[in-house]
Parts: sequence; C-alpha cells; structure tokens
Amino acid sequence: MATSVLLVALLLAALASAYPMDSTQIWPAPQTLQTGASMLQVDQYSLNVIPPPNSTSDIIEDAIARFAENSFPFNPSIYKGRRREKPRSFAATLNTVTISVVDDSEVLQFGVDESYTLSVPVGDTAVLKANTVWGVLHGLETLSQIILWDPEDLGYYITGAPLSISDAPRFPWRGLMIDTARHYLSVATIYRTLDAMAYNKFNTLHWHMVDAESFPVSLPSFPQLAQAGSYSPDATYNLTDLQDIQQYALYRGIRVVPEFDVPGHSASWGLAFNNLTVYCAEYEANVNNIPFDPTNSFTYQVLAGILNDVTSVFPDNYFHCGGDEVVLGCWSDNTTVTNWMSSHGISTTTALEGYFEKQLHGIVSSHSRTMIVWQEIFQNGNVPTGDTVVEVWQSGDVLQQVINSGYQGILAAPYYLDKQSPIGVSHYEWIDTWQDFYTSDPLTGLTGRTDLVLGGEGCMWAEQVDSVNFDSRVWPRAAGIAERLWSAASVNDVTTAIPRLVSFRCRLAQRGIGAGPIAPDYCPLPPENQFMNYK
Amino acid sequence: MATSVLLVALLLAALASAYPMDSTQIWPAPQTLQTGASMLQVDQYSLNVIPPPNSTSDIIEDAIARFAENSFPFNPSIYKGRRREKPRSFAATLNTVTISVVDDSEVLQFGVDESYTLSVPVGDTAVLKANTVWGVLHGLETLSQIILWDPEDLGYYITGAPLSISDAPRFPWRGLMIDTARHYLSVATIYRTLDAMAYNKFNTLHWHMVDAESFPVSLPSFPQLAQAGSYSPDATYNLTDLQDIQQYALYRGIRVVPEFDVPGHSASWGLAFNNLTVYCAEYEANVNNIPFDPTNSFTYQVLAGILNDVTSVFPDNYFHCGGDEVVLGCWSDNTTVTNWMSSHGISTTTALEGYFEKQLHGIVSSHSRTMIVWQEIFQNGNVPTGDTVVEVWQSGDVLQQVINSGYQGILAAPYYLDKQSPIGVSHYEWIDTWQDFYTSDPLTGLTGRTDLVLGGEGCMWAEQVDSVNFDSRVWPRAAGIAERLWSAASVNDVTTAIPRLVSFRCRLAQRGIGAGPIAPDYCPLPPENQFMNYK
Repeated sequence: MATSVLLVALLLAALASAYPMDSTQIWPAPQTLQTGASMLQVDQYSLNVIPPPNSTSDIIEDAIARFAENSFPFNPSIYKGRRREKPRSFAATLNTVTISVVDDSEVLQFGVDESYTLSVPVGDTAVLKANTVWGVLHGLETLSQIILWDPEDLGYYITGAPLSISDAPRFPWRGLMIDTARHYLSVATIYRTLDAMAYNKFNTLHWHMVDAESFPVSLPSFPQLAQAGSYSPDATYNLTDLQDIQQYALYRGIRVVPEFDVPGHSASWGLAFNNLTVYCAEYEANVNNIPFDPTNSFTYQVLAGILNDVTSVFPDNYFHCGGDEVVLGCWSDNTTVTNWMSSHGISTTTALEGYFEKQLHGIVSSHSRTMIVWQEIFQNGNVPTGDTVVEVWQSGDVLQQVINSGYQGILAAPYYLDKQSPIGVSHYEWIDTWQDFYTSDPLTGLTGRTDLVLGGEGCMWAEQVDSVNFDSRVWPRAAGIAERLWSAASVNDVTTAIPRLVSFRCRLAQRGIGAGPIAPDYCPLPPENQFMNYK
Repeated sequence: MATSVLLVALLLAALASAYPMDSTQIWPAPQTLQTGASMLQVDQYSLNVIPPPNSTSDIIEDAIARFAENSFPFNPSIYKGRRREKPRSFAATLNTVTISVVDDSEVLQFGVDESYTLSVPVGDTAVLKANTVWGVLHGLETLSQIILWDPEDLGYYITGAPLSISDAPRFPWRGLMIDTARHYLSVATIYRTLDAMAYNKFNTLHWHMVDAESFPVSLPSFPQLAQAGSYSPDATYNLTDLQDIQQYALYRGIRVVPEFDVPGHSASWGLAFNNLTVYCAEYEANVNNIPFDPTNSFTYQVLAGILNDVTSVFPDNYFHCGGDEVVLGCWSDNTTVTNWMSSHGISTTTALEGYFEKQLHGIVSSHSRTMIVWQEIFQNGNVPTGDTVVEVWQSGDVLQQVINSGYQGILAAPYYLDKQSPIGVSHYEWIDTWQDFYTSDPLTGLTGRTDLVLGGEGCMWAEQVDSVNFDSRVWPRAAGIAERLWSAASVNDVTTAIPRLVSFRCRLAQRGIGAGPIAPDYCPLPPENQFMNYK
C-alpha cells in the first residue's frame, strides 16, 4: 500500500533527523566544505591525535584531551543498542590526526588569526593545519563534529570522505554576555557556558559582573563592596575564581572582557559606601535607577582600585565600562550634585556624564585598556576618545550612526536572549527565537564604513535566569547568533539550518549542556550525562 | 545619610524575598489561614510525625518519609553558613505532628474529598486532620511549606504561630498534560513531574501518550505498534513502566488519565499496520494530518486491544480519547473511504467522525470508563453520550457552549505551556507567562451551569521539550495554573503572588525540580541538589 511506504519514509526522515547521520552537519557552517562519498570507521580507543611536533603548547595538549571526550560521548561497552542488520562498509579506518601550527604563542587578543584547514582523506590520517593555537582549537571542534555515533553499530564513523574544509570567522568579535548581578551564576555554570561557547566557536565572554541588584565580586582593593553588596557569601567570586575562569576561557580560545557598568545601575556599590551613589526620591522605586555620585572624588578612587584588581586578572585589551540607562534626572534631583555642577561650571547633567566618562577614561587608559561603552554614551555625545568601542543594544539604526561618526561598533540589539520576540516577530514556540537571531545580519542595511563593525554579542540578562535554568534559556538559541557571526552572510536560510541545528543541539546535550530540542526528535543521551534532570 | 538607609532597606527587601522567611508563603494559597506572632523552632532530627493510629495506609507512611526530605533540604552538618549575630528567640519547639484520618481507603477517583485542617499552636504538637488519605497528603505538603530554613542559624523554624489552616480545592480537576510522542520523556522525568505536581497540589496527570510523531507505548495486545512507531527501543514505555508510574502517582494523590488521541494525529499507528491509517496526498506534508481509517474493522480491534491493556494498568474512571484536529478532508480524498461511506449511507465526513466516536464509545464504556474528548468532537456534534466530558483548548468561549449543552467541561485554552503569549499578552521575559495563566479564571465570563466546569489543565505539548529542558519550561510557570485551580477566585493579584512564588520556586529548586527564577534573587541550593547543570 502506497500509504505505508510514504509514511515510513516520512517518519524515518523525522527519526533520522535526530541523529547526526551526516558529517556535513557542522555548526557553525565552515566557509568552504568539499565532500566525497566514502565512509570511514573511527575507533575511539585507537584514534591517535598527534600534537604539532614544533609546539609544546599546553593549550593544544588540553584541547586534544577534550577532543576525545567531546567526540566520543558514548562508551559502547556500557551502552545498550541494536545491531544493524547489514553492517556498514567502510573505505578505511581513521587512525591518526596530525596537527601543525605556524605560531604556538598562547597570547589571545582581539583580531587574532582563528583560521584553520582540515583534510580527511579516504585513508588513515587526517590533517589539521592552523596559523595559531586558536585555529587549532576551532579545527579540533570541527573534526569532533564530523564524527558520528551509530546507535545501531555502537561505533563511530565519518561520512562524505574525502572531506576538505577551509575555515575562518566572518567577524572577529563573537560574544556572549552573561549577567552575574541579577542572579549569581556558579563557577561551574560559567565553565559549562565557556564549553558551550567553544562548541559554537564564540570567542568572547562579555562578563557583566555587577549591577544594581548585587555586587558579587570580592576584590582586594575594596572587599567591602562584595561584603555589603553580594546576595550571600556563597554567591561571591573571589580573585581565585576570576583567575580560574580566565584560564578556563583562555584554554578554549575565549577572551574574557569584564564589564563594570557605570555610572548608572550602581545601587549595589552604595551598600558598602553610602557616598558612592546618589539618592533621588523620584526614581527610587526602581533600584536600577540609582547612579554613582560623579562629583565625589572617592568614586574615582574606588573605580581605580577595582580597575587595578580586575585588569590584573584579565589580560584582555578591552574593558567594558557600561554606561547604559544612566538616569540623569537623578543627578538633577540632588542638590549636592547640582551645587557641585554650579561651582564647576557644568551646566547640564549630560555634560556631567561626559565629565565622568573622561575621568573614567583616564583610569582605564592607565591600564592600557580600550574602553567599550553602551550606546547611550555615544548618543549623549560623551564618548571620550576615538578608539572607544560602542555597543549598540536598542536598535540597529544606531550602529549606522556609530560608524558614520568613525567609531567601531558591536551589535547586540537583535541578540537579546531574555526577549521572547527579539525582532518583533512572535513565535508560538519560544525556542524558535533562534531564527530571529539567525536572520539578523549585523551588516544588513548599513552603508559606509561597515569595516568598523567588529561583530556582535548575544546578551543573557539574568533577571529570570540562574544556574538552574541558564542552559535551557541560552542553548540552542544562541547557536543562531554563533553561526550568524562565524559563517558566510549567505548561509542564512532557516529551513536549511534546521536539520544541522537539530543535530548540533543533540551534540550539546550529549556533552552535558542543557540544550532542549527545536523540533520533534529523539536525542539519545549517554548514561553518564543523564543527570537528575536529564534522565 | 538618608540615601544609604533607604537603599539598604530596598536591597535587603530584595534579598529577603529570596528566602521563605515567612510561614504564610504557601503555594497554592490555602482557603483560610489564621496566624499569630510567635516563632517555633523545628529540629529536623527530632521532629516526630505520627501516622493516624487507626490507619495502616502505606501511602501515608510513604508521604511522612517524603515530608522529612522535602521539609529539610539542607543538612546543617555539611552546609557552610554565617551565624546570626543575635540568635532568634523561639516561643516553643515543635516536636510532634499528629495525623488523623476518617477514612483510610486508598482508592483515588475524581471528586474525592481532598480537604484538611492544620493547626500549629504555640507548643510542641501540630495537628493535621483530614477525611481521606489524599487530604493528609495535601496537609503534609502545606506543613512542609511553613517550615523555613535559616541560612544564618543553620536551622529550621516556623513564623506566625499559632497557625490555623482550613483548606480544600476550588476545582476537583486540576491537571497537567504531558506529551510523550513529540519527545520521549524518561520515566525519571515523569516521576520528577509527579513530585512537582504534588508540591503544587495538582491532582491529575493527563498523559497524552501517543501522537503522529511516535508511538512510545509497548502494549501486550499489539506490541508491533511501539516496535514500528517508537523513536527507539530506548524511547519506549513497557507495561511495568506504566504500572510504576501509576503507583508513583497514586502515592502522591494524583490520578493518571491516559489519552490515546484518535481518530486524528494517528500516523505513528500506521507504521506497524498500514491499513489503520488513511493516505491523502493533499495533506501529507504535515504528519499530524494523517487520520485513522474509520471504515476498517481492524481499527476497532486495535483500539479494543489497546484499551484493554491500558485500562488494566490505570484504574481511573476517565479515558481521554482525543479527537482534536481530525482532518476530515483526508477522508474525502480517499476513494476507499468514500466508497465505504456510500455503501453505508454516511453522506458527510463529519457524520463519519460521529460513526467512529460511537464505535469508540462502545469500547470505552465496555471498560466502564467515561470518555473525554477535545472540543472539536463537541463542535462537530459528535459527542456520543451525555456523560462525555469536553476539554476546551482553543477558546474559552467554547466552554460556554459546552455547559449550555449540558456537558461537563475542562478548560485548557488559557493554560498552554508551549505558548509564549497564552492570552495574547506579550511579556518581555518568557517566564512571566505564569501571570497570564494566573489571571485566567475558568469561570470568568461564564453564565448558567458553571457547576459543569470540572476544572482545568496546563498542557505541555512537547515539540520543543524533552527530558533535558522539561522542568525549566514547565516550572514555575505551571504554578500559576495550580493556584488558580486550587485557591479562592479572589486570590488573583499578581503583585501579591510574586513574593510567594519567588519562595515557592526556590523550594522547588531545593527539592531538585529545575525551576528557574521569576525575579532577581538568590536561591541557595543544597550541595546534594547541585546537579551538574544546577551547580
């Protein structure tokens, strides 16, 4: 009966989509991918990944160890499966992966070469080549994604050999912003997030460390800030935590860009030092409205101390100074502030913000860091220097103004992970917001100096996210952002992306990331990754 | 400085809201609650909960054991905390809880008495009284929620003594629907869901077992259905699984109402038996469109076998027969079907659906079960008998028509957990959809026989949910439905509910349910509940 044949085909297609049955299902899509028609066997116990002979990079050594874990989530000896009736026929067995690297420097800064090439011929040896350690990491991630698990043969294999990949990112700034002030995120959650970011080839963790609601960072210069401003002693990062996170990120090719969001959103600072912040009756109902007191010299002493501590841990050339949603009216409301303004010849609160930014720039530049600010500082005409980078969060239109003015820009506006309808499109299913991210190109509609657009950032504001539900809010949705920022602009078709993303989210779950499904399917999880709420 | 005092008060208020600092923060809110001003100490190691002297109920024994686990998630000997500078002063220590029950029958059916009273005087003994085992369970849950953890004293206490509670549900049907066809949910996930339901005083698990995408239930009469129709042998429930789930639910006062959704959404049945389903070229693109073949007598043999198996496991008086979205046009498209209609004097496909429902009713009633159908069967005029219950999922207006026609109804329409904007309201944060559920009263706008409204059901359609992200999609959002169905209609103010829900979701997370936050806060998790993705 025709019915059954067609239905079986339909259903099996649906079933098959649950498994990464095809080695071309790489996320984010590489720039070029050439494939053949042969299948290779991969034995998880004998595959030998050889570090570059001219390198002693610990980061590469560590990445090779992780490669094995990530590529082989199933241990056949404890996994129960069905035997395929007709065994697969393999053209060869992949036994060896050789790696070469031109420069094994372990310094990671913005704009570093992240390119790599990967060749998997019909034979026993694959070849990974990169100019830098960071290209090697990306190449190993790609290689792990072309290795497929066969639940019927209880083994691993590769399709489409010979495979040849040449890859490099479209944008050099591919960030994910986390917010540890609205909710504390455990160090383990941040580690897990860095793992997931590496799987997505994100290269920048933008860490919005403090905000109005809490000050969770305990720093040597002013430990009182966390003592008074954190939710709990158990909800605090100390200097060792920051160092561990920096190291963990570095080993995954991820820069950590710390943010201290000033002069707005500063209420938590005021818990330790009353005179750091300004009181304004009209705005008190929302704790986010409380700004710094920019007229108090102690404010700048505290900022200098914090900057000194934080830059000692994070070597990144950039420092994010926030600057969003400064409630200037709160300053107008306070007579101490307005009196100071009069005596210093500052006639508007906008100009007072400019004064603050100049002082702040002095501190930041004394540590040889480049400032990043949220878009309002630009819109208020208060960007202190031409090298300051402007992050656009409210509307893509502002990005045009930013580059028109000759500033470098980062786009966050269409990539807000706390929104259900990021670009005004309403989806029945909430997970489908990945499509909105995916179809938002940073350069769409822009003219002129588009070379000033460094890239983009997904932002996970944490009012309704903590360690419990972080994974399932962020993944696989942020994967839409990851591919938009890495892959070619032309790789933007949602329908084509779906089967790859179905496979990729299953890989994420198999590796212990709490990424839920985007479509009906079955994603087998290895027993050791069936944690309580994964069971 | 006035600034700091006010800010400290603001911030500490925000912090305090993270903890259940007040024994009145019970979810769902009890019908009556009287409180005093005294504090009681509770020692987790010496508190003695005494079963009813006239009862040998295993269910009560088991609930008492769970009560200890749920009430005392922190083990002070391994938990690191701060000491309160000025220790609390307690009026008494609660040492004993006595329980009395009028009837300790362990039969659970719709409409059973679930009421209880709980008295916690300023003294050493609390008293819980109920008419049934099920009232005892609810009373123990309430008692566990009035016991508070003090992270500064590393101990437990109760505020507001003497407390006096008299409680009973507003609606007798308080359901949560799970869908195990779009994604398989592990048995452990279903257990965890039953736990969370009991914490919310839900009393009905509506189990949408099969659908177009998969047939995960392996039954003795027709094991071929799961063999061909499940995603994988690992993604299948066998009879023992069903029995275990029934038992687990019973022990938590939860009825299991199985659903086999027919005659639409039936493609997965056709994988084993081609002639069970009908092919229609026009509709094949969506697998959900494929219906049963109602003209084939084998269809009814299969249904009779399935019903026989399933009713042998689930003793509930109700059986849900689905009936939503039957694509009648698929029948018109098929000449085998239309020829049969001609020869049997059935002139419309709507009438053919009526024929199917009559046959189905014969099978269901032979097992002494009452049918439940989705609203389309009612709208098509095909409800077989007056005692059939109609579940309304598309619009509350239909519920008025249902009761006008003298049928009993269950409301699901405003409680769809897969929707981001359940009642057309768009929230910036997705979790806030709990508010839409919360403010949707089943009786709003209804006139006439409102006594025919049995209650409501939250529905977690599983296209984008599996065991990985189930908890974080359902909780704490479904808590909004739970309180709407249990508590008084007047308890419907979102602002008042927020601090209680903040506390309650933290309790859920502390008990191992993956419920994320609804507002900035800090929810301490006991180390043993810090699973990998909770860490």
